[in-house]
Amino acid sequence: MNAKKKRAKKAVGKRQAFPFAENGREMYGWAADLFPLPRSLTGPGVRATLEYIKRRLPALQIHSVPSGTRAFDWTVPDEWTIRDAFVADESGKRLIDFRAHNLHVVGYSEPVDRWLTLDELQPYLHSLPEQPNAIPYLTSYYKRQWGFCLSDKLRKRLKPGRYHVMIDSDLKPGVMNYGELVLPGKEDREILLSTYICHPSMANNELSGPVVVTALARELTARSDRRLGYRIIFVPETIGAIVYISRHLDRLKQSVIAGFVVTCVGDERAYSFLGSRRGNTLSDRIAHHILDRSVGSYDHYSFLDRGSDERQYGSPLVDLPVVSIMRSKYGTGNYPEYHTSLDNMSLITPRGLADSYAILSKCIRGLELNRTYRAVFPCEPQLSPRDLYPTFSTRDSGRSVRDMMNVLAYADGKNDLISIAEIIGVDVFKCSEIANKLCAAGVLTTV
Amino acid sequence: MNAKKKRAKKAVGKRQAFPFAENGREMYGWAADLFPLPRSLTGPGVRATLEYIKRRLPALQIHSVPSGTRAFDWTVPDEWTIRDAFVADESGKRLIDFRAHNLHVVGYSEPVDRWLTLDELQPYLHSLPEQPNAIPYLTSYYKRQWGFCLSDKLRKRLKPGRYHVMIDSDLKPGVMNYGELVLPGKEDREILLSTYICHPSMANNELSGPVVVTALARELTARSDRRLGYRIIFVPETIGAIVYISRHLDRLKQSVIAGFVVTCVGDERAYSFLGSRRGNTLSDRIAHHILDRSVGSYDHYSFLDRGSDERQYGSPLVDLPVVSIMRSKYGTGNYPEYHTSLDNMSLITPRGLADSYAILSKCIRGLELNRTYRAVFPCEPQLSPRDLYPTFSTRDSGRSVRDMMNVLAYADGKNDLISIAEIIGVDVFKCSEIANKLCAAGVLTTV
Amino acid sequence: MNAKKKRAKKAVGKRQAFPFAENGREMYGWAADLFPLPRSLTGPGVRATLEYIKRRLPALQIHSVPSGTRAFDWTVPDEWTIRDAFVADESGKRLIDFRAHNLHVVGYSEPVDRWLTLDELQPYLHSLPEQPNAIPYLTSYYKRQWGFCLSDKLRKRLKPGRYHVMIDSDLKPGVMNYGELVLPGKEDREILLSTYICHPSMANNELSGPVVVTALARELTARSDRRLGYRIIFVPETIGAIVYISRHLDRLKQSVIAGFVVTCVGDERAYSFLGSRRGNTLSDRIAHHILDRSVGSYDHYSFLDRGSDERQYGSPLVDLPVVSIMRSKYGTGNYPEYHTSLDNMSLITPRGLADSYAILSKCIRGLELNRTYRAVFPCEPQLSPRDLYPTFSTRDSGRSVRDMMNVLAYADGKNDLISIAEIIGVDVFKCSEIANKLCAAGVLTTV
Repeated sequence: MNAKKKRAKKAVGKRQAFPFAENGREMYGWAADLFPLPRSLTGPGVRATLEYIKRRLPALQIHSVPSGTRAFDWTVPDEWTIRDAFVADESGKRLIDFRAHNLHVVGYSEPVDRWLTLDELQPYLHSLPEQPNAIPYLTSYYKRQWGFCLSDKLRKRLKPGRYHVMIDSDLKPGVMNYGELVLPGKEDREILLSTYICHPSMANNELSGPVVVTALARELTARSDRRLGYRIIFVPETIGAIVYISRHLDRLKQSVIAGFVVTCVGDERAYSFLGSRRGNTLSDRIAHHILDRSVGSYDHYSFLDRGSDERQYGSPLVDLPVVSIMRSKYGTGNYPEYHTSLDNMSLITPRGLADSYAILSKCIRGLELNRTYRAVFPCEPQLSPRDLYPTFSTRDSGRSVRDMMNVLAYADGKNDLISIAEIIGVDVFKCSEIANKLCAAGVLTTV
Repeated sequence: MNAKKKRAKKAVGKRQAFPFAENGREMYGWAADLFPLPRSLTGPGVRATLEYIKRRLPALQIHSVPSGTRAFDWTVPDEWTIRDAFVADESGKRLIDFRAHNLHVVGYSEPVDRWLTLDELQPYLHSLPEQPNAIPYLTSYYKRQWGFCLSDKLRKRLKPGRYHVMIDSDLKPGVMNYGELVLPGKEDREILLSTYICHPSMANNELSGPVVVTALARELTARSDRRLGYRIIFVPETIGAIVYISRHLDRLKQSVIAGFVVTCVGDERAYSFLGSRRGNTLSDRIAHHILDRSVGSYDHYSFLDRGSDERQYGSPLVDLPVVSIMRSKYGTGNYPEYHTSLDNMSLITPRGLADSYAILSKCIRGLELNRTYRAVFPCEPQLSPRDLYPTFSTRDSGRSVRDMMNVLAYADGKNDLISIAEIIGVDVFKCSEIANKLCAAGVLTTV
Repeated sequence: MNAKKKRAKKAVGKRQAFPFAENGREMYGWAADLFPLPRSLTGPGVRATLEYIKRRLPALQIHSVPSGTRAFDWTVPDEWTIRDAFVADESGKRLIDFRAHNLHVVGYSEPVDRWLTLDELQPYLHSLPEQPNAIPYLTSYYKRQWGFCLSDKLRKRLKPGRYHVMIDSDLKPGVMNYGELVLPGKEDREILLSTYICHPSMANNELSGPVVVTALARELTARSDRRLGYRIIFVPETIGAIVYISRHLDRLKQSVIAGFVVTCVGDERAYSFLGSRRGNTLSDRIAHHILDRSVGSYDHYSFLDRGSDERQYGSPLVDLPVVSIMRSKYGTGNYPEYHTSLDNMSLITPRGLADSYAILSKCIRGLELNRTYRAVFPCEPQLSPRDLYPTFSTRDSGRSVRDMMNVLAYADGKNDLISIAEIIGVDVFKCSEIANKLCAAGVLTTV
């Protein structure tokens, strides 16, 4: 533990130490609590998950959308309740058991209770020969069928004979649930944080997303000085995002100046960035600024590599400036555990969660202070009478005066602070400190 | 022949096999028929050429413009008729004979019938010491003079003595002819194809141009579903293009969305691309898209390297989006035969003509289907109920769904299909198939 | 001398020989005359300098701005007169003597006449341990204090004992002076040349600036055909520029299309270019065009590296297109003599001054002829009847026709001549000659 801590410290030492370690342990604990719940697009598992989050975010609103509700090209599906599922041998021994791992049953399986020979059973079994120990994650939301997922190792051990297959599920009109927390700011402009809560027992994709967003939401709730509003949503992937967009499209298009889909943020591997469709929005700019300065090298993916709810947010008639900052990106060689039982609690770590949290938090803080400034006087101000010269001449005081004059030089009422930060090569937080000092001295003003 | 065919097939095998081989032989035959005609800016040779073409394109209109007609800064010159020309020795033996090669007489030579000593004759002779076997191609359209061109080898063999020089030509008011074929489309927008028919017996520059344009025009005539109109002209170079522009300037500026000067398209050497003056017009974009994907590497020339009628089309007050796709470009080291008798029927090949035809045809087809699309719904559509998922999951089905979703993602009502094709890295024909399928499924629409 | 001349000739030989060598000797002479004067922000040294310049530029206006005058955030300081200053030992021997070098006294030192021990004296002494032979240049314009500068070598030789320190100066309300020469042109648009006259005995920074500007101003005064106006100012650095801007801001913003801060232009080392804040103004464009073609490689600095009066001209509410072309840039490793007594008359040379003069003069001439042209006819003009073809076909005549046609091709009424020059790869002077010829021939016109 000591050794690991040291290594982690070293890794970010030159940039900035993140004061979020305790958060990491707490988020990891939440993920551990939520891990066993049998989440899906709908049903009791999602509700239990949202209620757990609501205990940490009392202002969270849990919405229910009836099955059959239309949203653009989509329809909210029936609600699925899964109580039990197994494949047992003739002796009644459960060989594949939902109670052992909820990935064993194909998501949205219809109920079944039959005896089948092994040959008859095979078409309903799904395994991954190339990952013989992994139970794959499969769903069939929009086509009624049933099935079981299992490790290829186990599958190979099944002997000819008769098997009792039983799925005790309901698939009938009900509701789809999602959580929403809207935190108003001093301005109407908003940041969107979106994560999903529809995957059963998998840790990085997806529990890392909801727990990091919960922690961010708690931090934002506690701040009384929010300049921007925050729209934080926990939705079933795809259909949940689509329903949410269909209910709030005008408002989203009016208010959202930046947004982040939060997923795959719990491991300690590479950082990944997935750009918006336009590629040059405020979200792209702040994400690059923070990642460039906080994590050094990271994998850059374009919108062509999208895979989660940015697909909806970035679609042409929605066109929101939404990006995704991840650790190991889903669907890449960096993340073989994706959508299998190998994506378990050992893949994510308190440190991984805390570091991702810190990066997202920095993006948010960067956006909070991203004002546009304008010099008050033509020409440079006179520094000495305004106490803007460093009192002690130190090694860094030359740099400090230069940075101050550079902020002033580019404060033309058009460049926002992130632009100035990129132009002058100084991070946006330092630029903001400088801008505040210059405003206090009466030589700079916000526009 | 077999070996050659195989090689050619291999060269394009990975990209797309061109189904135009029979066209190549036909075009080569036309060029062979037209080769001996004594073309010039004006005169019977041009008329015979246009009439030959009209037999393949019955709708071609052959226009006559009287000598002396003004066009911007230019005047249509007198008509030149050349019947015979020779330099004979005292025995009457023709040493330089127009009947042997029509390049032997300087184009637009005035009539002459004299006896000269070799020394007196020399100033009227033109040869190329660095290409001793080549008869150069020379003209003097706007200054009355006469002369003979011959190989340097032959020139060196001329012995002192008296020579009979005779040019049986007319140079007097008449007409300049050009051919025009206007094929209307469903829309008013037009593609311009321009080629020239003023060079005597040379194969690549210029007969390759007229025969490829004739074949393209025949293909376009046969199509009943033309979305765009086509303006296809066969003009004497420079003066012909200028006269044509002067008669149609407003219409050209209004309608022409893309255009191609077609010349030097008969050999099998490198492809060359010469950009428009602006460098980023629709013509440049489609040409790059097709060349990048069909021929791999090719020589790129800017408008600074122009040399044919794009000089007129791209001039600032005309400003049409015209480019030129060639094989070996005139005036470069790749094409030493240019403007000499070495540019003969062995320099061009059926394969060379067919491949160039195919590239131009693809550019045209790419432009025909280059619509601008817009998604019908906010968010992604639901693929399964619309039968947009591939029925069989194959190795390519993932790619296929991804391409489809990418077309949708960039169909914002602003990007045209060529832009989308470039953004998502899929060729415009495939993009068009996808767009058609999406339109049929009701999730995409043209704007 | 011969050897040196040859070397210099060779250095620029391939590009263009500068016919300005005699200018170099004259400018060097002026700098030598001005070198001993005790310049500062204000006082008799500045006045004597301006009067010297006025003898060469009789139209120069010398302005006086009273102490205490406000200019934006600044106040004109009291006037400083320095008559004598020394540190003497008990025997009365002057160890540090203003009469030996006027850098020995800190600029703007208040009067003093006291006896101090060496220990008491030390805080008032300034030297450079890393450059033991150099007397540093120090000032204290806005905080009343006094001090002496000396070489570290001399400082180390001072023995314990009592020292007589005497500074015979006045620091009291008076005036700040600056020189201004406004040369009207046919148009209202103006070029700004700004240099400073507030540094005591240093040669490259700053006397090279005023002498080169004086020579340029003389050249410009003599020209009767100025298209542009010239605003040429000799100001105390910073406060002088700020006062000048405060008096003329609207006019400057309206008229100045390009400007140059002229400093550090006397040595023969590398050329340096410091860009405007926007980085793409007319000043940046002409400077790059001339430097690229006249000096080959040079050091490029962005506005982030600014250090002289471009700080004021480029400040966001002033926002003038001002750049700086220098030889060795202040504050870089190329110029260790900067702000010390090592920046003496041996650092600058007639050749260095003449070459810098030539570059700036070329920038100015380039701007003078930087018109915007437009073709008169659609299509190319007919060259022969307009005598635009070279009479003799030489090796260069092909190039010459091509350049002419290229100027025409890009003369679309939008590109200015510098843009055309950059597009077609021909220098702006040659382009101007071509444009003039084309205008005379009636095929091109200015817009």
